[in-house]
Amino acid sequence: MNAIDSEVRTIMSAMGERARRAASVLAYAATDAKNLALTAAADAILAESATILTANAEDIVAAKERGISGAFLDRLTVTEARLAGIAQGLRDIAALPDPVGDVVANWQRPNGLDISRVRTPLGVIGVIFESRPNVTADAGALTLKSGNAVILRGGSDSARTSRAIHACLVQGLEAAGLPLDAIQFVPTTDRAAVGEMLRGLDGNIDVIVPRGGKSLVARVQDEAKVPVFAHLEGLCHTFIDKSARLDMAVDVTVNAKMRRTGVCGATETLLIHREAIETHLRPVLEALAERGCEIRGDETVRRLFPAAKAATEEDWKTEYEDAIISVKVVDDVGQAIAHIQNYGSHHTDAILSEDLISVDRFFTEVDSALVVHNASTQFADGGEFGFGGEIGIATGKFHARGPVGLEQLCSFKYVVRGSGQTRP
Amino acid sequence: MNAIDSEVRTIMSAMGERARRAASVLAYAATDAKNLALTAAADAILAESATILTANAEDIVAAKERGISGAFLDRLTVTEARLAGIAQGLRDIAALPDPVGDVVANWQRPNGLDISRVRTPLGVIGVIFESRPNVTADAGALTLKSGNAVILRGGSDSARTSRAIHACLVQGLEAAGLPLDAIQFVPTTDRAAVGEMLRGLDGNIDVIVPRGGKSLVARVQDEAKVPVFAHLEGLCHTFIDKSARLDMAVDVTVNAKMRRTGVCGATETLLIHREAIETHLRPVLEALAERGCEIRGDETVRRLFPAAKAATEEDWKTEYEDAIISVKVVDDVGQAIAHIQNYGSHHTDAILSEDLISVDRFFTEVDSALVVHNASTQFADGGEFGFGGEIGIATGKFHARGPVGLEQLCSFKYVVRGSGQTRP
Repeated sequence: MNAIDSEVRTIMSAMGERARRAASVLAYAATDAKNLALTAAADAILAESATILTANAEDIVAAKERGISGAFLDRLTVTEARLAGIAQGLRDIAALPDPVGDVVANWQRPNGLDISRVRTPLGVIGVIFESRPNVTADAGALTLKSGNAVILRGGSDSARTSRAIHACLVQGLEAAGLPLDAIQFVPTTDRAAVGEMLRGLDGNIDVIVPRGGKSLVARVQDEAKVPVFAHLEGLCHTFIDKSARLDMAVDVTVNAKMRRTGVCGATETLLIHREAIETHLRPVLEALAERGCEIRGDETVRRLFPAAKAATEEDWKTEYEDAIISVKVVDDVGQAIAHIQNYGSHHTDAILSEDLISVDRFFTEVDSALVVHNASTQFADGGEFGFGGEIGIATGKFHARGPVGLEQLCSFKYVVRGSGQTRP
Repeated sequence: MNAIDSEVRTIMSAMGERARRAASVLAYAATDAKNLALTAAADAILAESATILTANAEDIVAAKERGISGAFLDRLTVTEARLAGIAQGLRDIAALPDPVGDVVANWQRPNGLDISRVRTPLGVIGVIFESRPNVTADAGALTLKSGNAVILRGGSDSARTSRAIHACLVQGLEAAGLPLDAIQFVPTTDRAAVGEMLRGLDGNIDVIVPRGGKSLVARVQDEAKVPVFAHLEGLCHTFIDKSARLDMAVDVTVNAKMRRTGVCGATETLLIHREAIETHLRPVLEALAERGCEIRGDETVRRLFPAAKAATEEDWKTEYEDAIISVKVVDDVGQAIAHIQNYGSHHTDAILSEDLISVDRFFTEVDSALVVHNASTQFADGGEFGFGGEIGIATGKFHARGPVGLEQLCSFKYVVRGSGQTRP
């Protein structure tokens, strides 16, 4: 290990210890204190907006000098309006019910024991994100409200902006008398810091949440020695059954693909029942093409819709994150399910159908975090679920699956109340 | 890799693939079919009892030849009565509600979307156990009922018995028309098979459950590349508060320590409030000593109860699994909590107290899977919780915490029902 790596390790190890200490206090912090910290942070974001915007302008100049442009630059950019949105987001999370202490289940045993399952914080969350400064506020707020400490490691491109926003969160903690180490921001942009976090900081990180592109998520999933809440891909499908209503098929498919093409819940592959191709195929594909979507279809699709390009095997495996859709004709709901199980990413898959037997089969057999009937796959979102926000979406089967909100950032304990019971 | 390791890898890899295929069928097997498999297996256990007892006699002869005796030999031994118990255990699990498809939560969104959280199986469970032949039946039955496939790897000492019991489970699967690969038993006793399972069989094992001593659990936790449901230690505490009722303190503490000293929920350390030592210390320790428990105490304990040996720092860290208890006097509930957080294993900790403020504080601040008021720590058990059985007890904070029963062997999916909703 060279001297710099050793220095990074020392810094990160100390952050881990401070986070663990803060977590032990936060675990039973009063709801009012947590909410005060969030609303005070929102006030600070607005009061310090000039400082944040100046920091952001510096980040943008530096990014442009490195030749960065387009969507990446847009995500990096903070405006007065976006700051107002960030502040409102903090207030919205303050307004949500506190998950900690929530009694999830309660039952009595014949011997009189009363058993409750009660939500508790997980401990210390590590969030590794790329250059979206708003993640600093979102992740900081969700982890605080759920009684967890957080170590935030943001991308270097947005470092100045993220630090300025982080300073506002710390102002909020201070106003509420909560440990300032509850929300820490990694001070170094050295990538070795990420490696240290993935190794868990000597047991002081309980779970890692990566927020960013596939290469970041893949690295985190490969290297992490602690649990990870993440999805690598959102290769989502919409299946138009033979009984699907035509108007719904057009509206929902267009929304599922084109509302935003870069989100993980966007549909990438359209499956259509062979008995629906004469009626549904052309209207749906025309509506997509009109909105600028490239169509890649199998032979049958191309025969009926000659503007389509030929789909290859690779297309069924591809999350385009772009205005491109692959289209395949299937013989029945069973073949649609088989395709999804074979090529999908277990994220979100939808069926459009008026036949409840097919819907039931789809719901039962498709093994995805979200299965959807007669609605857009783009509802895969913690806000749309009513979670009041999300720190990410998980496709693992353990603990958190689907949108990761306040409840998913919690563990639980069993509370057993007796009156002197002994076990026979 | 030598030829034998390569052969083990080939065998295990094929078992993983078969398990995955079986799991995809079991995931939506009818409840009736699963229950029929369990009751038919129970019938087979009784019908084949002579075969099982013969196999067991061979295991016992071989074990004795290797110089094995005592508790280990007792655990290995199967009798007519124990077989009847195993068969009844299968019937009990058949009688439990099916967790798969259970709607855990359901809510509506303002846009009319109806969202349910529905239990689904986890997939393939790997169970690695030492020489308790009954685990074959228990683990096979719990995983089957929860819709999971299982790969069982039992200790070599009980291999003949476990295989004979496994054959009965397979008879049950056959009678119910379920995939015979739903419950597989590793045919080789080569330890390399364990290593293969810990690496996850190319993604074909979703979770590992170790059942056995600390060295087995430690190996599994260290080496597993997949999630593990386990507890390494059950270093449980009972705290006698100053307001504890004397009769309850005696009864519950004796039960918590001495009912069975080898179980993970047995109390290992007794903490007692300084203001209770004049009244409670001697009666409790005398009752323990009368039942053959060795007392190791701090200075105050030894002054008041001279028969106690001196406890060292090591004692506070030791899970005796034996008729030994360490005893410490603390100034207040805060000091009791601090001791538990410092030395405990986050398994099960109890407070005996009539002061609800102290109880609340104990419940809030002790970060253990089970926190107990006025009852024995030995209630840490899936059966006692009403789970109808358990495959183990977990002390991790993710997914399963505490007793791991049918519900904990399940994941979930979100089922979203719409009427054409698109996301704005």
